[in-house]
Amino acid sequence: MTTNPSPQIWLYDTTLRDGTQREGLSVSIEDKLRIAKRLDQLGVPFIEGGWPGANPKDVQFFWQLQEDPLKLAEIVAFCSTRRPNTTAAAEPMLQAILTAGTRWVTIFGKSWDLHVTASLKTTLEENLAMIRDTVEYFRSQGRRVIYDAEHWFDGYKHNQDYALQTLEAAIAAGAEWLVLCDTNGGTLPHEVSQSVQAVSNHLSFLVSQESMTIPQIGIHTHNDSDMAVANALAAVMAGARMVQGTINGYGERCGNANLCSLIPNLQLKLGYSCIGEHQLNQLTEVSRFVSEVVNLAPDEHAPFVGRSAFAHKGGIHVSAVERNPLTYEHIQPEQVGNHRRIVISEQSGLSNVLAKARTFGIELDKQTPQARQILQRLKDLESEGYQFEAAEASFALLMYEALGGRQQFFEIKGFQVHCDLVEGKETNNALATVKVAVNGKNILEAAEGNGPVAALDAALRKALVNFYPQLATFELTDYKVRILDGHTGTAAKTRVLAESGNGYQRWTTVGVSTNILAASYQAVVEGLEYGLLLHFQAETALTTSS
Amino acid sequence: MTTNPSPQIWLYDTTLRDGTQREGLSVSIEDKLRIAKRLDQLGVPFIEGGWPGANPKDVQFFWQLQEDPLKLAEIVAFCSTRRPNTTAAAEPMLQAILTAGTRWVTIFGKSWDLHVTASLKTTLEENLAMIRDTVEYFRSQGRRVIYDAEHWFDGYKHNQDYALQTLEAAIAAGAEWLVLCDTNGGTLPHEVSQSVQAVSNHLSFLVSQESMTIPQIGIHTHNDSDMAVANALAAVMAGARMVQGTINGYGERCGNANLCSLIPNLQLKLGYSCIGEHQLNQLTEVSRFVSEVVNLAPDEHAPFVGRSAFAHKGGIHVSAVERNPLTYEHIQPEQVGNHRRIVISEQSGLSNVLAKARTFGIELDKQTPQARQILQRLKDLESEGYQFEAAEASFALLMYEALGGRQQFFEIKGFQVHCDLVEGKETNNALATVKVAVNGKNILEAAEGNGPVAALDAALRKALVNFYPQLATFELTDYKVRILDGHTGTAAKTRVLAESGNGYQRWTTVGVSTNILAASYQAVVEGLEYGLLLHFQAETALTTSS
Repeated sequence: MTTNPSPQIWLYDTTLRDGTQREGLSVSIEDKLRIAKRLDQLGVPFIEGGWPGANPKDVQFFWQLQEDPLKLAEIVAFCSTRRPNTTAAAEPMLQAILTAGTRWVTIFGKSWDLHVTASLKTTLEENLAMIRDTVEYFRSQGRRVIYDAEHWFDGYKHNQDYALQTLEAAIAAGAEWLVLCDTNGGTLPHEVSQSVQAVSNHLSFLVSQESMTIPQIGIHTHNDSDMAVANALAAVMAGARMVQGTINGYGERCGNANLCSLIPNLQLKLGYSCIGEHQLNQLTEVSRFVSEVVNLAPDEHAPFVGRSAFAHKGGIHVSAVERNPLTYEHIQPEQVGNHRRIVISEQSGLSNVLAKARTFGIELDKQTPQARQILQRLKDLESEGYQFEAAEASFALLMYEALGGRQQFFEIKGFQVHCDLVEGKETNNALATVKVAVNGKNILEAAEGNGPVAALDAALRKALVNFYPQLATFELTDYKVRILDGHTGTAAKTRVLAESGNGYQRWTTVGVSTNILAASYQAVVEGLEYGLLLHFQAETALTTSS
Repeated sequence: MTTNPSPQIWLYDTTLRDGTQREGLSVSIEDKLRIAKRLDQLGVPFIEGGWPGANPKDVQFFWQLQEDPLKLAEIVAFCSTRRPNTTAAAEPMLQAILTAGTRWVTIFGKSWDLHVTASLKTTLEENLAMIRDTVEYFRSQGRRVIYDAEHWFDGYKHNQDYALQTLEAAIAAGAEWLVLCDTNGGTLPHEVSQSVQAVSNHLSFLVSQESMTIPQIGIHTHNDSDMAVANALAAVMAGARMVQGTINGYGERCGNANLCSLIPNLQLKLGYSCIGEHQLNQLTEVSRFVSEVVNLAPDEHAPFVGRSAFAHKGGIHVSAVERNPLTYEHIQPEQVGNHRRIVISEQSGLSNVLAKARTFGIELDKQTPQARQILQRLKDLESEGYQFEAAEASFALLMYEALGGRQQFFEIKGFQVHCDLVEGKETNNALATVKVAVNGKNILEAAEGNGPVAALDAALRKALVNFYPQLATFELTDYKVRILDGHTGTAAKTRVLAESGNGYQRWTTVGVSTNILAASYQAVVEGLEYGLLLHFQAETALTTSS
């Protein structure tokens, strides 16, 4: 269809508008500004900032961007067509859009006759007038207009003629982009493909009739059928040139099309041009940055950018992938800023251990006694119930120990916990006492908490924070418990995985014991130890490089 | 292409094999049996149970299923072709497959010449012999064979002739299904479509030449390009009739095709027939059941089955969707056992409660205050973090309480726990004291244990066993802990699921608290209570029937 070897696809990010519709996601103006700037660096040409007027936060956000504008990206204000039976000029809601001061405005209108009569409660004729009048008004105010055809695919299925009339209204009034929206997310790729082709044909027909400027087609999809990304690709392959989506696929219900999957598919697989190569390899970082800013745990299994996306288990895979990455990797992880990970587990052979050590910057020789010693220690611990697949920080500590490089920041001498639970006593019902030695000095501390693990954590931090003030920035971000042998019930061994963070990095440690508190404690203690190790390594690196 | 209005698609679940390759997911034999039974009820015709021989756990699993077989589903053993330069009969690995005692065996072999030479380090000819010989051997032992063509799409792209020869080897040896695998997950739907059509044409050509029995085509996809579900649909539309996938899309790296998305897309959107309607509406429950059993947080934004999949925010959406669900819902949520949620004011679900009550033999009338009261209590508890999908015994107690039929066997007055941990003290390091009232009499008891939960359990049994000697047969068989809000670390709420058994039956109870011991205790106590209830119900039934 096209002779250009890499036609341009215009990315349109709506993380800051549609993305914030996700249940449980809320952002401050500050958060929105940070994300907009990061997307600008990533090379996204259109960033939808919000609906000023519908939300007071969004008005502020646009004003702040006028003070301190983005470098290259167009920030776009979003709003609906005017209400029925008024004029665009008389609509206060549209005035707020103008004060946002953007060059581009996205206006969404109804394509589906059912919505016109059932939701807007107006006539089909009036809806066409609303589209025409609103687009014309913004054009007359010097704005460039993207028209979002809401519920396009459902509307087109139910009343094809009317749906096409809504697009014609937007074209006649001067819209430069027609974005076909699968608002309910129920459409499948073959239907998207047919519908986009039909619109494309209709536009060609119009232009031959009336010699008007023909707008380009865009696509906006939702993931209710698990098809958001596939539908967007189908639309592009049928001729769409703008793709709307969000970072990490955030959005209402099941989310929007995930730009972190769309961009590499478009660029690496289909040969379209979206962003620069040096920007594409920021993708993993951008994904994690956005999840940190909105305070949601990253999806470790996300395509392309997830922590597990290029993780290899099992010895055969590992040796094959190290010889030839093509055998088990569909792209080079570095192209999207991710990296290969070797997962350590029961099935690990020596080659996994060596590969893993390399990721911590440790070069082990297969022939050395240390390498065999680490492998043996790993096997012993795994047969006791430890699991290092998800606890790389504990594995790193184990390696440092075998190599004689495990620094002892503190030594635990013992701890006691006391809980007293009576009906109605919900807070501070646990008391913990810990005894720790630092630099040969014994410290005894006690703390209360809601539950024994919180009390232990608090007591330990109290004991150590005078020696290591950076502990104050560490937090326990996740905590999982698993009973290893169901048959012995409460007397069984318990495995605890504790995830800790320092605001920049996260790491996971493991503890195993028949006593759930001892297992928790072990994982928490190793979490603190590894955090300190990271801190001092970073400090050493800074000192060395300066 | 087909005149049948709803052609059958054969579902093939590999949660128990490929699903367990997911990083961080590990299951016991008991977990695998529970999942297999639940999938059998769901109507999945093929359930891949594991690779006996590669894993000692899997051998046990198949043996236990021989003792207590599934109702309708075929349990399938999975293995690779024999190694190079030997015979199938001389390969010990294949003997383990035979002892698994299944009617069906899935054999995977190499389709991609690169893998034959680079990973297997053998000749292209020998690989064909390995496929032929292994399939023939299992056929000679009376097994029916599914052939998984590993790396099919990459192999076909690189060396089409050789890839087709590997399929021909499997066909000639008697395989009944040829499953085309996108092992690396890098293929896009249009490529899947072309490749499946090409294979289909080639098979038609073969059958016209040699009048052999023509196998059917299956599809096995991974989600590395965010295309697993779209690729499986593309394959089906191009003629594939078996779909392999996992519940919740669990699997290595970015996961496998998600059956929870595939089934409703195939059945509700494309008109294929997979499972019964009364089974399709168990889908949400099955998704949550599996996530609870494997102890992973459910994805709230999952298509079809996620808690947010039919959640409506914003006033316009809500009123429109209440007038006409079609306006903002692509399917009826009840078709997949999910329900509409209005985000601010939690509502609906009465019919779920009624359906659930029915599973405990309780007929509730929708109009009664008890039904509404149960619903209200359920909503209140769920908003506190309780979850009853996998804790039916706690749900039953809740219902009996609302109906005035919850017998009070004992009353907990309070408990205390003390743990003292020093290096090397591994046993009886916890001491628990409980105060319980039975028939108006207060009992105070203390017991030691390995860990606080074991000590509590022991003290409670000691206090109660004189009144209820049958308690001696109860045991806690599994115990799982999840932190509900990761962000607050050890101060977060904890949910404990405890599974108990009496040698004949098993039941699961739930407890929630910011104190892990309080949550554990609650679940353990309800477990004992429900066990007593079962005991006295059985006794009553015996008395009545005699």
